[in-house]
Amino acid sequence: MASRSQLATRVSGLDETAMAAARQRQNQLTKPPGSLGRLEELSIQLAGITGQPQPTVERKAIVVMAGDHGVTVEGVSAYPAEVTPQMVLNFLRGGAAINVIARQVGARVVVVDMGVAAEIEPHPELIDRKIAAGTANMARGPAMSVEQAETALAVGMGIAADLAVEGLQLIGTGEMGIGNTTPSSAITAALTGAPVAEVVGRGTGVDDAGLARKIEIVERALAVNRPSAADPIDVLAKVGGFEIAGLAGLILGSAAARIPVVIDGFITGAAALVAARLEPRSAGYMIASHQSVEIGHRIILESLGLTPLFKLDLRLGEGTGAALAMHTIEAAARVLREMATFDSAGVTDKW
Amino acid sequence: MASRSQLATRVSGLDETAMAAARQRQNQLTKPPGSLGRLEELSIQLAGITGQPQPTVERKAIVVMAGDHGVTVEGVSAYPAEVTPQMVLNFLRGGAAINVIARQVGARVVVVDMGVAAEIEPHPELIDRKIAAGTANMARGPAMSVEQAETALAVGMGIAADLAVEGLQLIGTGEMGIGNTTPSSAITAALTGAPVAEVVGRGTGVDDAGLARKIEIVERALAVNRPSAADPIDVLAKVGGFEIAGLAGLILGSAAARIPVVIDGFITGAAALVAARLEPRSAGYMIASHQSVEIGHRIILESLGLTPLFKLDLRLGEGTGAALAMHTIEAAARVLREMATFDSAGVTDKW
Repeated sequence: MASRSQLATRVSGLDETAMAAARQRQNQLTKPPGSLGRLEELSIQLAGITGQPQPTVERKAIVVMAGDHGVTVEGVSAYPAEVTPQMVLNFLRGGAAINVIARQVGARVVVVDMGVAAEIEPHPELIDRKIAAGTANMARGPAMSVEQAETALAVGMGIAADLAVEGLQLIGTGEMGIGNTTPSSAITAALTGAPVAEVVGRGTGVDDAGLARKIEIVERALAVNRPSAADPIDVLAKVGGFEIAGLAGLILGSAAARIPVVIDGFITGAAALVAARLEPRSAGYMIASHQSVEIGHRIILESLGLTPLFKLDLRLGEGTGAALAMHTIEAAARVLREMATFDSAGVTDKW
Repeated sequence: MASRSQLATRVSGLDETAMAAARQRQNQLTKPPGSLGRLEELSIQLAGITGQPQPTVERKAIVVMAGDHGVTVEGVSAYPAEVTPQMVLNFLRGGAAINVIARQVGARVVVVDMGVAAEIEPHPELIDRKIAAGTANMARGPAMSVEQAETALAVGMGIAADLAVEGLQLIGTGEMGIGNTTPSSAITAALTGAPVAEVVGRGTGVDDAGLARKIEIVERALAVNRPSAADPIDVLAKVGGFEIAGLAGLILGSAAARIPVVIDGFITGAAALVAARLEPRSAGYMIASHQSVEIGHRIILESLGLTPLFKLDLRLGEGTGAALAMHTIEAAARVLREMATFDSAGVTDKW
């Protein structure tokens, strides 16, 4: 596991020279300057991330990390924990929403077992990095040890490094873990100081009584564990999850490799928050795909200074919003690269 | 030209049986019901439009209609009128933003000369339906005759019918015409009753003085012509444009052929407003892609009862927002068709 100072030396700032070149080219393309709005901004960010004045983001992957959560025994989810391994198998067979959207966007789906509480048969498409068979119940003590949190971060960073070696140019974050909106709420409250009731939502669909129970459990977990807002690894260990820690590492590793990383919804947002607290420069490498229905997501995005590309009332996770956003991100890069300039097309630039 | 009653008999209501089947299937797919939000709603709308419980929208086209506007002599645009034919050539050579985004989404770009004020050399990809070399100056009299407006509507309907015969499954609307936010503002004010100052924006980028001039010109055009809000063809003829009339026909023709039609920004929105006033059932066939920067667009979308899929601060036109939205629309259809069900995947559906 890299120390905080090691991370800081690995994640560079954005490349200002490439951004200036991209900005200049945007103003030469055959359209009124600024008329493609956020597509133009995205293309400039991609230039800064990659260091290329005309970046390419054709080779894409969604990394779906899965883990189980001891806190589910408290009844915080509308689905039983057995659904986590069932959905992992669904991912491997190509039948889940993320598989469909990833196929449409031309992205590979990388499935990682970070800590599912069931044995999953070896599969060529499954990366087995199981740290333990689910976390401990954070309502009664720490979800995991500091060593486990650090290992999970290192696993995520390693996967990003592997994808960089394979030539991936755009990485999306996804997750599966019954109960994982509960630790995500606890992380968000711990790191931002927001009231628990403002960061706990209905997840996959708990009713009013379930929502009240979730709030109580998150408050109890924070009271029992007292995570330190100044120490993101302490927060991860006490009230996190294996897939969330892995995703925080994946995001840091993507930033270190200068690969743009797409944040999905609330859970991957909580991971992004941890990453940004460990290394603030990593936020420049993030692209927020969507605004989730889950109420705490807005607080995370504001804390990260990210504006989502769309709001489609999604609350599924798996990386579905991140995959949908890849179309727009790729369009932004292609516009910058492929459009004609006023000169080349013989179009009059203003009066 | 079809009369209003002929249109009414041609555009059917949405297919409720197909919609019910799609809704039922959405609830059997391996995800919490409703968790894909607007993607689920879109898939159900597509079922209703096409009459297919599992619709396909793979064969896609963006129809870009171009026309010039006599009102440009009043100085309402930041660009000279010569840019219209220059951009048509840019479309034909594949160098414009719409070409790039359409390539990325796998859509054909169909370019139609509805009334460009310049001779454009024949090109295999150009459909020449020029009605006249630009409209007359609506600030001094009607932009076109009623016969020209009806011809333009019929041309649009004919192009939709041709695309239906060719098997197109998703049609996007696009436009090019220097000055065309000005007639679009006049149409919107005339048909919705909104104050002119609330429907006039900066178009491709006029300054404060230009904005004041645009407002004055639109007010003058409405005062000089007195279009009847109850007669959309009268409005089109007096303060419209050839490409706007053609797009209204294209939208009606798409609805008649049960093909979903994607609305782009303010100008195609004005065309959609005309279409919906001619045949209210056509609104059910429309999908609003984005919320434009142009201020009048919001009023149009509200009047049509449409909620845009995203807001990316676009103000280019050409169909760029419609093309970007096709990714999301296609994803919605594919999720419905390709996802596994709880039964087929062996996933537990709730406790």
